[in-house]
Amino acid sequence: MAEKIKGKAVVGQSGGPTMVINQSLVGVVEEARKHPEITGILGAKHGVRGIIEEKFLDFASVDQATLEAVAVTPSSALGSSRDKPDAEYCKKIFDVFRKHDVRYFYYIGGNDSADTARIVNDLAKDNNYDLQAFHVPKTIDNDLRTTDHCPGYGSAAKFVASAFMGDDQDNRALPGVKINVVMGRHAGFLTAASVLARTRDGEGPHLIYVPEVDFIEDKFLADVDAIMKKCGRCMIAVSEGIHDAQGNAITAKVAASNERDAHGNIQLSGTGALGDYLSGLIKAKLGVKRVRADTFGYLQRSFAGIYSKVDAAEARIVGQKAVEYSTQGISGSSVAMKRVGNGANYAVEYFHTDIKNVARETKPLPREFINAEGNNILDSFKDYVAPLVDVLPTVGYLF
Amino acid sequence: MAEKIKGKAVVGQSGGPTMVINQSLVGVVEEARKHPEITGILGAKHGVRGIIEEKFLDFASVDQATLEAVAVTPSSALGSSRDKPDAEYCKKIFDVFRKHDVRYFYYIGGNDSADTARIVNDLAKDNNYDLQAFHVPKTIDNDLRTTDHCPGYGSAAKFVASAFMGDDQDNRALPGVKINVVMGRHAGFLTAASVLARTRDGEGPHLIYVPEVDFIEDKFLADVDAIMKKCGRCMIAVSEGIHDAQGNAITAKVAASNERDAHGNIQLSGTGALGDYLSGLIKAKLGVKRVRADTFGYLQRSFAGIYSKVDAAEARIVGQKAVEYSTQGISGSSVAMKRVGNGANYAVEYFHTDIKNVARETKPLPREFINAEGNNILDSFKDYVAPLVDVLPTVGYLF
Repeated sequence: MAEKIKGKAVVGQSGGPTMVINQSLVGVVEEARKHPEITGILGAKHGVRGIIEEKFLDFASVDQATLEAVAVTPSSALGSSRDKPDAEYCKKIFDVFRKHDVRYFYYIGGNDSADTARIVNDLAKDNNYDLQAFHVPKTIDNDLRTTDHCPGYGSAAKFVASAFMGDDQDNRALPGVKINVVMGRHAGFLTAASVLARTRDGEGPHLIYVPEVDFIEDKFLADVDAIMKKCGRCMIAVSEGIHDAQGNAITAKVAASNERDAHGNIQLSGTGALGDYLSGLIKAKLGVKRVRADTFGYLQRSFAGIYSKVDAAEARIVGQKAVEYSTQGISGSSVAMKRVGNGANYAVEYFHTDIKNVARETKPLPREFINAEGNNILDSFKDYVAPLVDVLPTVGYLF
Repeated sequence: MAEKIKGKAVVGQSGGPTMVINQSLVGVVEEARKHPEITGILGAKHGVRGIIEEKFLDFASVDQATLEAVAVTPSSALGSSRDKPDAEYCKKIFDVFRKHDVRYFYYIGGNDSADTARIVNDLAKDNNYDLQAFHVPKTIDNDLRTTDHCPGYGSAAKFVASAFMGDDQDNRALPGVKINVVMGRHAGFLTAASVLARTRDGEGPHLIYVPEVDFIEDKFLADVDAIMKKCGRCMIAVSEGIHDAQGNAITAKVAASNERDAHGNIQLSGTGALGDYLSGLIKAKLGVKRVRADTFGYLQRSFAGIYSKVDAAEARIVGQKAVEYSTQGISGSSVAMKRVGNGANYAVEYFHTDIKNVARETKPLPREFINAEGNNILDSFKDYVAPLVDVLPTVGYLF
């Protein structure tokens, strides 16, 4: 085996936070501390932005107790970034790495972050500079390719399922139509997790709309009408990313109709727009009196105290594995999981995969989990998602 | 002591659900089972509506295991009602009671429900019919008079505080302005609970607006601008019930400006409107790029799995006490709590109070908890609210 590359490590967090992205961060740091060839660990503040501005936190000053407190804290403790580095930006990153003798780079994020890690890795290769660049996966959208599922998803799915469990009881108590808008611009995995709340026949969510199926308003109204006639109430899960047959996001359409307010110059584009629009549609077209819409928003990804223990443990290991693999001479890769047991025997194996198998493109919710009509999620999806969310609360019924 | 009144009991739930209203229901049922003078326990389905339509659940068929499962389930297991009975409606209730030989009536709800219990109690008196009518308090708004606090509030406050704890981390990671709209049409208690998330100096929420103070848009914009200049980010808690100096709710104003949509005939009045409006205002007037708004919505009152153990225990006892007092010949009353210890020595004593001390009018958040400027909640409020929410998650910081 070749001599191990000696130098500093940089770790950063990118994109939308999750409830367990700090577990991955702590996984990276604690594993890196075990490797003498890693001579220092620098945390990039606010992702790539912190690298090019050389804003680093030296983890030498951070004790284990702080790390453990951070691990169970939602969101990105190092700060995050929405920057999407181009070639020139990546060149700056590389220059900073060279300046600080950084030989290990761990970037925790989604498919865009994977692409950043890939570009920097290629730059280093082209310059004959030894750099082990690794992508550490996270996303509540669960839309990364290759891996069975993504760290962050299980906890967000637990939040969504718990929210629907409670809200379905609320809708039973005060019947009407209730719409809940769930995160997920391109993939319906998180919205689909609402199916876990359907613990009895006839309970909600009665309708589930994901971006993998075109959203046709007339069809939607007919769906709601049918459920209202059958159940006297209707719980609906809707992905924020639903779009019409031409691929236009419904949210964008709604925002456009809202450009002017009372002052004539204020844009009313906001997170509540889609739910409010659909709710208005039902009131106007179906004449249902009690229609309410909630948009779960950032609570789905950053609610303190709710996370899946399974997800948290996996997120930690994924961070550790990135360091382990990189110190074995592997670079330009991402950590992925393979499910090797399910249900009560749920288990995963970890492996590394070339970053190009993760970067840029995303994975949609497989069609097999969506019903033929395209307005619901099949119970078979529960087998996929249930082990990831860990334990859910139970609900009791009097009738 | 006079002979105990023998007859059936009716229990019902009313108004907006809470996470522990079923604890009070179970408290009523389990205590009533101990009293032989209560010859049967009927649950009114959907509150007063179920009474006049004689839709009852006979608790004789409900075992203890089901009761315990229901107790930890959010929302109203018997169903709820928004009906506000007038004299004629109450007459119908009374007629049904007479028909079924109902001698005990427990109505779990807010101040409107208290008023219903009061009217029915008076009707019985006027008709020389022995009826022990009791109000059992619940409301996440915490705005009932006489009692130190209301069952349901502590759990909702825990949800709000946890949400802000996580969301403040989110806002640290991706800085900008974040507005969270919290329930509370007339009282700011629930919004004020967001102050529990401020675990360190400089952390959010940086601004808190409650309905007890007029909301002046220019002042609001100046507040946000000042915080952005000082902290580079701004977390804001806003009660849904904020209103201008003339008492007009801002939400109503916004809904009016939104009456027409793309179709020209759909009302866009919905829960997201206030947050989106304020967010649009900040973008337009302050030029802040990243402004986001979430409306917590029904999750605050019905999220499965999050409740305060203190709140749950008190809600249970409050239900038991109503039965205990009523079997002692007390009627036309409500159960209330007095705080007899605080902090680590937090404790309450239960007492009964004439319904008229609870019905109709509500209690605002005391001015002493609001800062002089009217844009924040003082840390002294933490002493009031902290014992009610039980344990909160901890958060860790790297810097």
